[in-house]
Amino acid sequence: MSHPLDSFFKPRSIAFIGATERSIWTRAARVNVKVLNYEGKLHYVNRRGGEVLGKVAATSATAIGEPVDLALLMVPSEFLIDTLPDLQSAGIRNAVVLSSGFAEAGAGGQLQQQMLLDAARSAGIRLLGPNCLGFVNFVDRIPVWTVPIRGPVLPGRFAIVSQSGALAGQMSYFVQWQGLGLSYMVSTGNEADIDVAQVIDYLVDDPATQAIALFMETVRDAAGFGRAAERALQAGKPIVVLKIGTSEVTAKAAQAHTGSLVGDDRVFDAACRRYGLVRVKTLEQLIVTTELMARTGPLREGGLGVLSMSGGMCEIAADDAEALGMPLPELSTATVEKLRAALPDFGTPHNPLDITGAAMLKPELYEQAIDAMSSDPVFAAVLAVADAPSDTYDDGKFSRVIVEHVAAGQKRSVLPSLAVSHVMRPATAVTQEVIAATGVNYLPCGLHQAVLGFAAASRWSRRQRQGVAKMPAIEPATQRPQSEQQALEFLATRGVPVIPTRIVNSREAAIEAARAIGEPVVLKIASPDIAHKTDIGGVVLRLSGDAAVGEAYERILASVMKAQPGARIDGIVVLPMRGQGVELFVGTMRDPRWGAAIAVGLGGIWVEALQDTSLRLLPVTVTDVEEMLGELRGSKLLDGFRGAPAIDRKAVATVVAAIGDAALALGPQLVSLEINPILVSGSRVEALDALAIWDEAPASVSATQ
Amino acid sequence: MSHPLDSFFKPRSIAFIGATERSIWTRAARVNVKVLNYEGKLHYVNRRGGEVLGKVAATSATAIGEPVDLALLMVPSEFLIDTLPDLQSAGIRNAVVLSSGFAEAGAGGQLQQQMLLDAARSAGIRLLGPNCLGFVNFVDRIPVWTVPIRGPVLPGRFAIVSQSGALAGQMSYFVQWQGLGLSYMVSTGNEADIDVAQVIDYLVDDPATQAIALFMETVRDAAGFGRAAERALQAGKPIVVLKIGTSEVTAKAAQAHTGSLVGDDRVFDAACRRYGLVRVKTLEQLIVTTELMARTGPLREGGLGVLSMSGGMCEIAADDAEALGMPLPELSTATVEKLRAALPDFGTPHNPLDITGAAMLKPELYEQAIDAMSSDPVFAAVLAVADAPSDTYDDGKFSRVIVEHVAAGQKRSVLPSLAVSHVMRPATAVTQEVIAATGVNYLPCGLHQAVLGFAAASRWSRRQRQGVAKMPAIEPATQRPQSEQQALEFLATRGVPVIPTRIVNSREAAIEAARAIGEPVVLKIASPDIAHKTDIGGVVLRLSGDAAVGEAYERILASVMKAQPGARIDGIVVLPMRGQGVELFVGTMRDPRWGAAIAVGLGGIWVEALQDTSLRLLPVTVTDVEEMLGELRGSKLLDGFRGAPAIDRKAVATVVAAIGDAALALGPQLVSLEINPILVSGSRVEALDALAIWDEAPASVSATQ
Repeated sequence: MSHPLDSFFKPRSIAFIGATERSIWTRAARVNVKVLNYEGKLHYVNRRGGEVLGKVAATSATAIGEPVDLALLMVPSEFLIDTLPDLQSAGIRNAVVLSSGFAEAGAGGQLQQQMLLDAARSAGIRLLGPNCLGFVNFVDRIPVWTVPIRGPVLPGRFAIVSQSGALAGQMSYFVQWQGLGLSYMVSTGNEADIDVAQVIDYLVDDPATQAIALFMETVRDAAGFGRAAERALQAGKPIVVLKIGTSEVTAKAAQAHTGSLVGDDRVFDAACRRYGLVRVKTLEQLIVTTELMARTGPLREGGLGVLSMSGGMCEIAADDAEALGMPLPELSTATVEKLRAALPDFGTPHNPLDITGAAMLKPELYEQAIDAMSSDPVFAAVLAVADAPSDTYDDGKFSRVIVEHVAAGQKRSVLPSLAVSHVMRPATAVTQEVIAATGVNYLPCGLHQAVLGFAAASRWSRRQRQGVAKMPAIEPATQRPQSEQQALEFLATRGVPVIPTRIVNSREAAIEAARAIGEPVVLKIASPDIAHKTDIGGVVLRLSGDAAVGEAYERILASVMKAQPGARIDGIVVLPMRGQGVELFVGTMRDPRWGAAIAVGLGGIWVEALQDTSLRLLPVTVTDVEEMLGELRGSKLLDGFRGAPAIDRKAVATVVAAIGDAALALGPQLVSLEINPILVSGSRVEALDALAIWDEAPASVSATQ
Repeated sequence: MSHPLDSFFKPRSIAFIGATERSIWTRAARVNVKVLNYEGKLHYVNRRGGEVLGKVAATSATAIGEPVDLALLMVPSEFLIDTLPDLQSAGIRNAVVLSSGFAEAGAGGQLQQQMLLDAARSAGIRLLGPNCLGFVNFVDRIPVWTVPIRGPVLPGRFAIVSQSGALAGQMSYFVQWQGLGLSYMVSTGNEADIDVAQVIDYLVDDPATQAIALFMETVRDAAGFGRAAERALQAGKPIVVLKIGTSEVTAKAAQAHTGSLVGDDRVFDAACRRYGLVRVKTLEQLIVTTELMARTGPLREGGLGVLSMSGGMCEIAADDAEALGMPLPELSTATVEKLRAALPDFGTPHNPLDITGAAMLKPELYEQAIDAMSSDPVFAAVLAVADAPSDTYDDGKFSRVIVEHVAAGQKRSVLPSLAVSHVMRPATAVTQEVIAATGVNYLPCGLHQAVLGFAAASRWSRRQRQGVAKMPAIEPATQRPQSEQQALEFLATRGVPVIPTRIVNSREAAIEAARAIGEPVVLKIASPDIAHKTDIGGVVLRLSGDAAVGEAYERILASVMKAQPGARIDGIVVLPMRGQGVELFVGTMRDPRWGAAIAVGLGGIWVEALQDTSLRLLPVTVTDVEEMLGELRGSKLLDGFRGAPAIDRKAVATVVAAIGDAALALGPQLVSLEINPILVSGSRVEALDALAIWDEAPASVSATQ
């Protein structure tokens, strides 16, 4: 089955349009064609004709006179659009646009870019760029890349996709000296046409690509990105992403509370969690984690087994793994027995496993340890700390013998089993030779990067097993709840337990309602215009007796009308006073890029002062919400404290998931649905207050003052 | 002025005791002597005599017949002690002990080690080891190291000191391929005699050593370590430490609360903060941060200026710096003006500064940017992202020209100014040549490691300017407060504002006290045996009126006697009921290794459920405590919330520092002094409750039941 971008990324012939001998771009692109030994045909086009780098240049694409699959456009931006008719008449349907001066150069450039895209579309031409460095297909040895590729270039297991061409180049240098290879390297530039989402979609179908390293500045098409990411997850191909902008303070000017709790970056984080994208912080980690995950693929449930002949490294591994959230479970009894037989007397079977300096004289300890640990059901993968030699000065024989034993153990291992250098080091020709000769699964990235990689692989694998939450069949709501009362009533119809309330409009009715509900009660202003009722005296708690209830009714009205004279008032809500429990906050929001999202947090100061919330895109499953509760800094408070019972996390999660579905049922005009607080005591969960905010006021509202 | 260890680390002659041709240790040590071109004299001693590696071996140290400064002992552990008389009679006063099988091998080995130490002491011989790999003095080219040193070996700016010889070796390989050098590398092994503290003390006096990279498993002499660390801080020589054991759960079985809040690792962290040690998490970071700080030395107050020709790198730098707590302040107006003149039209003067791709054609932009930023008072240092070429495949000329401009800017800079590669990469011969030719201050460690390093340098420099808090002149307490009442009274004499209280022993006295103090009041059980009064009904709040006070008096007594019949009861404390405010917890503890320490936290759930405390060794200054308050996860709650006034952090810090001094005044028998809570409202600070715990009951106590 062919992918729409097949002919783009696998051209059998390429034309360099605007090729000149003086241009460093032309020369670099030409050198790359030689370095990769491109088997297709290469043509030069220069409107003045003449000779370019020893070859006659055609004066136009059409003048080439034979079919060309792809054009590399290196003409100045002002002439760019004019070249398209020539490409069209030459039958060229794919173009890489190196030229800059488009959207990245402000409003004028943005207009130019739109004109370029329109012209390309009407000419039936797909574009990569503008303002990109091109791409390299290492699998088929096809370079369309305008700065020098560092050699030697091994075909590899993963692809680099980057909105910055310069950083793609930087990453490829790191790949090279770490002794790794790439399947593809794609610089998407301004993404006038082809964007990262489409490139990911293409790579999901590419058999050589097992994982994708992504550098991003912005997501241009969130829906397409989500679709491509979900396909990659289903295909078991991890996407590891370094996205900048975490320090950007972009709190939204939203009317409601939830919006101000999260910035763009937290929403992107939520998208990563939904689609299982692995988010990293450094370029080094981006490359190493992607390569490691490309090698391991999805891991089974379980922890990491670590072994080293240095006790110090074992302890560093233990500290590092704990800090990074990678479990290092204890060995099973059977494994302890096996290892006790193999280890010297002074060794102790443990994870991380110190095989001791005895391995100097008895290197088969590495093999025995990998054998034992890789058949232990508590593990998902095994990591052996062992250096492959990297220069002739190394005690080559000694470390080589160790690597041979590691490789032998790895070959029998049913689990992913990796060897890693103690500290990051280069993979030299010597290293490559030892890897090739022994077949060892080895990375010279150092222990820390390997633990980072396994921690990511473990999290990603869990998401991969769960899959992305499917959009449930939700019956759309037929009306828009406005008041707190309406919002609670609507939630009740959607399976959310809500506190029983009555809305009253007189002192007498308040007293009667209090009697009916059972005292003590709470009285609360009901107004679509007042978000924070407590701050303006709109709430009175713990009321018993007719006099107290009646007095509170009057006091609330007076206080609110003084504080906010213009507010529409629907009446006063009477509800039972509830006892102790944990208060939670749940709020949905709508992100302009990613759509509906939901935040959960502990109520009160936790949300308001510390903004301690966990965020996900909607819909969420009960499992998702349980995970969210675990992410809260105050999470421990859910487990019972000072005699309070632990809350039933599953019961809470079921209610929160139902709130998410309820928000989706209210449709895209809903800005926010906030339930604050939800009171939880053991397995009793009850929404005490609700607020729905819409992005336009409905036509008919009777304002009560 | 000579240091006691001078002759140890600068021997003019060395004897290898137990040298044999078959031993890999002997051969490695011998190769190292050649590689470093050691200028002193080398002797072999083998009790059988004969020839070793082409040279006649003496049959004993005495038989050498000329003065020897240091012996490298490679004899089996069982013969080790027997060699000491020979060394003594030969006048050898320094010995490196390679042999293992001592304290690391259990109780028997521990005894052997003590015997070795005793024998060495009576023979007047200093020991490094046993179970160590030796040391290398790169400054004077003196290797006493028993595994191969990787060449080429440049003399460098910093020393590696490690309790693990294997990891010292691993670090030195990283040093080597990063193109760096070392002043010393010392493996301290079991530290029977010379420990890390003494080595640090020696290195503080070594002019070549500007910083120390320390790998530790345990601190054997905390007092000596503290003294050496303080000397290093005073000398402006940073110590960067990777200490394992962060994942160790070693909560102390302390009677009091504070002890259980902190483990060994948190106390070591507190020691690091006291002495300005920089704590790191990976071996790579250990090396890079130490080298970077050795180059910058103490930084002035201010942030980091970053410049790059890649916008993507600028944004990565911004994210990274924010996450790591390194401020990147905005440019001053004057700097903006200078840069506006230099940058192309589409560039924007900003920090991090994107000097744009225009630098490809105009590499002097690097120079101009460094000039402008390094004269901006907001900065403490300037970091330029620019690769030095690392292989011949690089566009050597282009990056070389950039490096030349960077170097020119750096030469004029009054601030520390570093260039760093985009991503970590090896320093090859080409790199070294460019560095030597241009004089550029460059590290190939990649941006992330450089930002980590500057963040550490900035924190360390602040501590360096402050210095270590001096032990104040504290008048020792003449008695030991036992009860809450006595503890509060004692605190009052030490400048801690405490709540006025009365202790009563009858219902009538309680009523009278409540009237005198002014109602509402709180009644609270007074007992040296009850730590958590609330849990057993020992506290009643908000009491007004004789009847309520009287009834509460009876109720508390009944409740407490039922819950804890054996408790000694001093009476009931009557104190005024205070209003709203922030509750803080302050507790001191005594660590068996590091001595007295103090923890500060927000009260209630913050301390009890979340263990959100900040810890320091005592004494603490007001500035220290202000820093501690800033470290709390709930720190934001101190800044005023929901209409509550912000607390006066300086006022709180003054009280906390006074509590620390009060605990010191109580002497080393004090296990813990806890003040929980301290109520703070604005600048009013008042201790409401106090508890002193002693490690032995005083002789005379009248038990009241």
